[in-house]
Amino acid sequence: MDQNDVTAEQTETRRGRRAGRGRRQVKAYEQPDWRQPRLTFPPVELVSADQLEAIHDASIRIASEFGLEVVNDEAREIFERAGAIVDHSSQMVRFDAELVEEAVKTAPAEFKFHARNPARTLNMGGDWIAYCAIGSAPNSSCLDHGRRTGNRKDFQTFLKLGHMLNAIHIWGGYPVEPIDLHPSIRHLEALWDLLTFSDKCIHAYSLSVERNRDAIEMIRIARGITDDELDREPSLVTIVNTNSPLKVDGPMGQGIIEMARRNQITVVTPFTLAGAMAPVTLAGALAQQNAEALFGLVLTQLVRPGSPFIYGGFTSNVDMKSGAPAFGTPEYMKGAIVGGQLARRYGVPYRSSNVNAANGLDMQAAYESVFSLWGAITGGCNFLKHGAGWMEGGLQASFEKFVMDADLLQMVSSFLEPLEVNDDTLGLDAIREVGPGGHFFGCAHTQARYQNAFFAPMISDWRNYETWDEAGRPDAAKKANEIYKAIVADYEEPPIDPAIREELRAFVDRRIAEGGAPTDF
Amino acid sequence: MDQNDVTAEQTETRRGRRAGRGRRQVKAYEQPDWRQPRLTFPPVELVSADQLEAIHDASIRIASEFGLEVVNDEAREIFERAGAIVDHSSQMVRFDAELVEEAVKTAPAEFKFHARNPARTLNMGGDWIAYCAIGSAPNSSCLDHGRRTGNRKDFQTFLKLGHMLNAIHIWGGYPVEPIDLHPSIRHLEALWDLLTFSDKCIHAYSLSVERNRDAIEMIRIARGITDDELDREPSLVTIVNTNSPLKVDGPMGQGIIEMARRNQITVVTPFTLAGAMAPVTLAGALAQQNAEALFGLVLTQLVRPGSPFIYGGFTSNVDMKSGAPAFGTPEYMKGAIVGGQLARRYGVPYRSSNVNAANGLDMQAAYESVFSLWGAITGGCNFLKHGAGWMEGGLQASFEKFVMDADLLQMVSSFLEPLEVNDDTLGLDAIREVGPGGHFFGCAHTQARYQNAFFAPMISDWRNYETWDEAGRPDAAKKANEIYKAIVADYEEPPIDPAIREELRAFVDRRIAEGGAPTDF
Repeated sequence: MDQNDVTAEQTETRRGRRAGRGRRQVKAYEQPDWRQPRLTFPPVELVSADQLEAIHDASIRIASEFGLEVVNDEAREIFERAGAIVDHSSQMVRFDAELVEEAVKTAPAEFKFHARNPARTLNMGGDWIAYCAIGSAPNSSCLDHGRRTGNRKDFQTFLKLGHMLNAIHIWGGYPVEPIDLHPSIRHLEALWDLLTFSDKCIHAYSLSVERNRDAIEMIRIARGITDDELDREPSLVTIVNTNSPLKVDGPMGQGIIEMARRNQITVVTPFTLAGAMAPVTLAGALAQQNAEALFGLVLTQLVRPGSPFIYGGFTSNVDMKSGAPAFGTPEYMKGAIVGGQLARRYGVPYRSSNVNAANGLDMQAAYESVFSLWGAITGGCNFLKHGAGWMEGGLQASFEKFVMDADLLQMVSSFLEPLEVNDDTLGLDAIREVGPGGHFFGCAHTQARYQNAFFAPMISDWRNYETWDEAGRPDAAKKANEIYKAIVADYEEPPIDPAIREELRAFVDRRIAEGGAPTDF
Repeated sequence: MDQNDVTAEQTETRRGRRAGRGRRQVKAYEQPDWRQPRLTFPPVELVSADQLEAIHDASIRIASEFGLEVVNDEAREIFERAGAIVDHSSQMVRFDAELVEEAVKTAPAEFKFHARNPARTLNMGGDWIAYCAIGSAPNSSCLDHGRRTGNRKDFQTFLKLGHMLNAIHIWGGYPVEPIDLHPSIRHLEALWDLLTFSDKCIHAYSLSVERNRDAIEMIRIARGITDDELDREPSLVTIVNTNSPLKVDGPMGQGIIEMARRNQITVVTPFTLAGAMAPVTLAGALAQQNAEALFGLVLTQLVRPGSPFIYGGFTSNVDMKSGAPAFGTPEYMKGAIVGGQLARRYGVPYRSSNVNAANGLDMQAAYESVFSLWGAITGGCNFLKHGAGWMEGGLQASFEKFVMDADLLQMVSSFLEPLEVNDDTLGLDAIREVGPGGHFFGCAHTQARYQNAFFAPMISDWRNYETWDEAGRPDAAKKANEIYKAIVADYEEPPIDPAIREELRAFVDRRIAEGGAPTDF
């Protein structure tokens, strides 16, 4: 399957162009340097303190009176030892406010998330924001070859794109599922790809204890550190979706335990689509989300006090006519913002997402995404999952959308950069010099600053209508298609210590030879 | 030119469908009822109080030391009488902080904007938001017939659309310029169309004293009120762009005077594109914007203390490679938010816009628009100009974009609706009833609420990929095209008292017979 091949010719052209840099640099794309944005103003508070407490209280009633079904013996035992009311035959766990308040005391508000490349290590929590690539799509797509089942080649192409794009800070799961890798060994080869095609922070799926432990060992090897060092330095994230309503399956529960035990990062994200897996009323969906997220918070802190936990919010709604999930809706925005208020109530970092339900690269894909970003960012999101590439409610990872989203994320980062107000930026001398009816193009103040004065997007086409018309009326999707191919053509593997690479490969080969992990899920 | 004709057949189908309503209503579009949204959380503050004062201080220095060129004798005389330093030969006006602080004392923070139909009267200022249709595009466009020069037929089609769409509260100028109406009588026929095709709040261009006075008389007749009543009730808005930098032309200056004299609404919006008509640094562009807007504020209050004034912010940037204006950029968002802070400093309502620079109906058109909305709405915008239909930096009014924007605006309004938190919405009984692993579709709590639980967009296509694929993969633009035609087919003229209609037409006919207004601008 060679759908995404960039031809040798194209690569040659790019290389030639790059070699020819000098006096005047002509590139198919320019992007800002790597950096991590911060929320420079207070997050929006959509509900009052009293309303927030009412949601909290309702979730405590859910947790303590109704309980959660926890299909994991060890997790139930941990709760039982901590004083929760556990019924092992019905698998129900009931926990109260006291356990939550104890967990709040030890869960860190901020921590470092270590990447293989120290320059890619991130700050999690506080006012810091980190963007993930899309995770877990079963299908990939591009304009040239359409939509197809996920495969390793497309998976690797996403790794190239996300490695090259500075907007991407974290691999939040496989951008697209490499279906052609057998499930028993998929995690090994996919993590190998993640750790060699890129040097950014990585994620591991909690699909079995073996998979969690393989991932932990692989990031330890890749970072070239000891077990003790790893236990001190969060270097891996897992995202656990509860089976809403009120259910935690075995591997997910086990994943929380395995990761917390090694001081690695757990994001617990209830999958609370209002009207389907949660009440049709947003307050109820959020109360349920909160009860399920608090289960994760408490479990991580019972396993290892102080281990890093991120509160995940994913509440959206369904189309009540069809039951189809909807994203980037007004309800999604509200849910994203109140989710942030809840996470801050417990003093832990907050995860939200850049999502949409569009099938194609149209205006809907864009407006639902930006509405999602609006909710997530103004809601105080620290960990933005599905930041780039998500389409079709998560069923499709698009190369073009990936590039466009990277552009949107950089716009958000630029928006969040503090506005400088000083004598220099107030520019009174320039205003005096130019005078009434003049223009600023030629003045010294402009000439000294124009090259980096404004954010320069990759995609937006600001040519006038006539020029654009003569150029064949390219739309944003077409531009994104060209840029994605140019980026892939420019891709270079990040450096890795050959000894580490060898050790990592040997581990993968050994585990593959052992048969990988059980596939009975 | 019959480009936008909806065929008689189509109209028949719609009518038939409407006649057949009853058991099951099938409509091409559904929309929320008419209502005016409010900002339910505090606006974002992007700069500190100190920084805001630094921008204010810089703008006072611009106004008092550099001055503005005011190409209008009466305006200069008004400033001179108030103690400003005026040089009639150079036409420069220098005014100080004292005049600004005096104006701040009398300019109203909130007021009513009266429509011909009292049910369409609006609250301006405070936390109220009102959406305008696009104003002043020289070209119109639709998917069926492409882009063309503005004409009265397209103008009227926009009036039908905007009248039918509940998201539109105000006509902020002609959606597209009816070029085929001679300039001498264009304002008369266009205002006639505005006042008969629709019953919503209207705008008049300040292009000459005659045009302002004709518009004032026409809204007086249309509302069936006396001159005294009109002087008490703002019923007309004019939007004045300064000729940035630091210049006010004759008709614009006169427009402010004419409108303020009759207690009608003036929006003064400096056209400060950073790097072209304003400093390349955002703080400088905002200081200049502020100086120019304050000129308008002071003039309205000198003419008539207490007359309604709206602070207009339009600061954006240009593409420094080409000089092309850019909209919906990070700089635009920042400018929109700080503009709101400035307006609130002076205690007056704030105008911002929903803008983009896209040539076609692609992802760029959508993401730049939603970024604009993000800046405007979280910045505390009270009067959203170009709310629906704007494309191509204002050079193109699109029927499809108009419908899509109306959908976006309704999404914003829905987002701004307070989230209800009470026993009913927390839905604990439903959560208990459904239990772990269940679903909420069928429970009583859902059944009682599902029909109106969530915002239902007109455009977004939430069908699954396969169904969408079989339907021919319609994109958002195509859907918007269908809906715009369905709305136009459903259009019905709003009622008007026959005597008023007759009086209004007689006025238009008399003024046309008199030759309309001079065209020497």
